Amino acid sequence: MDISELGEFGLIDRLTRDIKIKNTSTMKGAGDDCAVLNYPDKQVLVTTDMLMEGVHFDLTYTDLRNLGYKAAMVNISDVFAMNGTPRQITVSLALSKRFTVEDMETFYEGLRSACDKWNVDIVGGDTTSSYTGLAISITCIGEADKQDIVYRSGAKETDLVCVSGDLGAAYMGLQLLEREKSVYYQQVDEARKKGDRNALAELSHFQPDFAGKEYLLQRQLKAEARGDIIARLHEAGIRPTAMMDISDGLSSELMHICKQSHVGCRIFEKNIPIDYQTAVMAEELNMNVTTCALNGGEDYELLFTVPIGDHSKIELIDDVKLIGHITKENLGCVLVTRDDNEFELKAQGWNPLQ
Amino acid sequence: MDISELGEFGLIDRLTRDIKIKNTSTMKGAGDDCAVLNYPDKQVLVTTDMLMEGVHFDLTYTDLRNLGYKAAMVNISDVFAMNGTPRQITVSLALSKRFTVEDMETFYEGLRSACDKWNVDIVGGDTTSSYTGLAISITCIGEADKQDIVYRSGAKETDLVCVSGDLGAAYMGLQLLEREKSVYYQQVDEARKKGDRNALAELSHFQPDFAGKEYLLQRQLKAEARGDIIARLHEAGIRPTAMMDISDGLSSELMHICKQSHVGCRIFEKNIPIDYQTAVMAEELNMNVTTCALNGGEDYELLFTVPIGDHSKIELIDDVKLIGHITKENLGCVLVTRDDNEFELKAQGWNPLQ
Repeated sequence: MDISELGEFGLIDRLTRDIKIKNTSTMKGAGDDCAVLNYPDKQVLVTTDMLMEGVHFDLTYTDLRNLGYKAAMVNISDVFAMNGTPRQITVSLALSKRFTVEDMETFYEGLRSACDKWNVDIVGGDTTSSYTGLAISITCIGEADKQDIVYRSGAKETDLVCVSGDLGAAYMGLQLLEREKSVYYQQVDEARKKGDRNALAELSHFQPDFAGKEYLLQRQLKAEARGDIIARLHEAGIRPTAMMDISDGLSSELMHICKQSHVGCRIFEKNIPIDYQTAVMAEELNMNVTTCALNGGEDYELLFTVPIGDHSKIELIDDVKLIGHITKENLGCVLVTRDDNEFELKAQGWNPLQ
Repeated sequence: MDISELGEFGLIDRLTRDIKIKNTSTMKGAGDDCAVLNYPDKQVLVTTDMLMEGVHFDLTYTDLRNLGYKAAMVNISDVFAMNGTPRQITVSLALSKRFTVEDMETFYEGLRSACDKWNVDIVGGDTTSSYTGLAISITCIGEADKQDIVYRSGAKETDLVCVSGDLGAAYMGLQLLEREKSVYYQQVDEARKKGDRNALAELSHFQPDFAGKEYLLQRQLKAEARGDIIARLHEAGIRPTAMMDISDGLSSELMHICKQSHVGCRIFEKNIPIDYQTAVMAEELNMNVTTCALNGGEDYELLFTVPIGDHSKIELIDDVKLIGHITKENLGCVLVTRDDNEFELKAQGWNPLQ
């Protein structure tokens, strides 16, 4: 159905009609000038992210459900990265004419699935048009007790540096998708040049080769916020001294923490967690897998520091790896390679403004 | 300066370095995964708006300073429309390559000027790239005591319907800008067809004809949120029963209030406040000025209802006009014209999805 048939308010009604409020702090959701939230004695956390078609996502290989899921998750991830609990999101969309009502329902299914996973309420937003594709802006609001909030600035000398999950897989997933896309367009080009209509018809059933690489795809297309790690740290009585989520790449995030905490760090290449599929894919593409893990981005794992006294507690936590320690500021951010060479880390993470 | 020279973090540092925190509720502004806000015993209000180049603004006739001012003001306006106090905004920008660092500084000057006017803190956001122009998404956070919040749903039969300021001027300003733009392009076209280089050179000094219409331009290009009206109502001891800001046009907003309050309304054409310049411009364009006031949009005035007992108090408030009253739901939304005809109001306001 054409979106103009429903109009803005009709579309919003359609997309939000089944939304049930899950948080007692959500006093009023969509449908007024503002959402109304209630946080007595808590601190409110607010984060926002903007995703532009062609820059942050490519609808030739992501579907709208996964896109909605990821758009919500990357914001939810930022609230966890403050050691908070995500509670609400607002959703602003700008749509070009090629999107239908059904497309937006699919996008909202993804959004809602991500929100349901972490009990987050969708409380409003703005829906408007765009001349040139899809633009998504999501704001997530969360809460935390004052003493629980973990900033980027709290890392201290001798603290241990930890990461959750594994790194570089989302970036390898992107490389894989880009490769299959270019294989497809190459074959289409060749068939066109030859005027081979049969070959062109067959290409409409083009099957990209993703066998054995499902994990990489999932990491790229369906980000997961690590609220489970936050819960486990809490249960184990560990309060990180500094924390952030890894969206731009480990290297860039380490430098943020070191800069804001006025410290240095020493990270060991052999300790950086890398999945088997990531390593195989890097090999196939003739890329250095550590470089991918350091600079790839979009992993949405947690990077955090804990006091050295928590060493034994951290080792008991599943899916968290100790990768190095915090040093004096003048020692800089150093990577110690497998062969014991030392390099100064550089933020070569994804630069959205280049 | 090219934005890529600074990169995302450099640009953010540059834009936010002089920002001073003004609200004690702002615990932590830009620079971490989330902003941290503190609202003990208050309710938090959240609103968001998305502005797309080519759809919501045209940089051939608005400058980036006014655009920043307006982008902040339209969100601040939504918090006032809940009878709240705006406290913080987050700012997400997607920029195409044609924008420079200086452009973004100009945009931020406008943002900051609007925020300074209402003591609002800029606490974070996201800055990224776009292939196709400028996209702006702003979220405003405010606070209110629970008993003070005014929803759209509280209008009661016999309540008086009031509006602040005057209506239709912003829409007339847009018509004026569009007219001068088309005059300019027409002259350029003609000069090109004739190959008249002198005429083309002269057109670079084209002076649009805005004499006597400055108010219309200002209303279109530099929206103002009516926090002054909120303050005056508060001082006079008036608590509106329902309220919203007029962004899509009086007609559309009246229907929102009536639908959500399960009431009807009776509005008198002769009472709708219209500025002299708006009337003159409508005459020039051969448009019905009441239609412009009902459906024009972008006035960002306040539409609200008060109990009939507040009649004498309301009449003492400067710049607020009584335009009608609330009726039973089954009577619908009715406009009584100057010649005592009655029409059912229709929401012909600007539809961003058509």
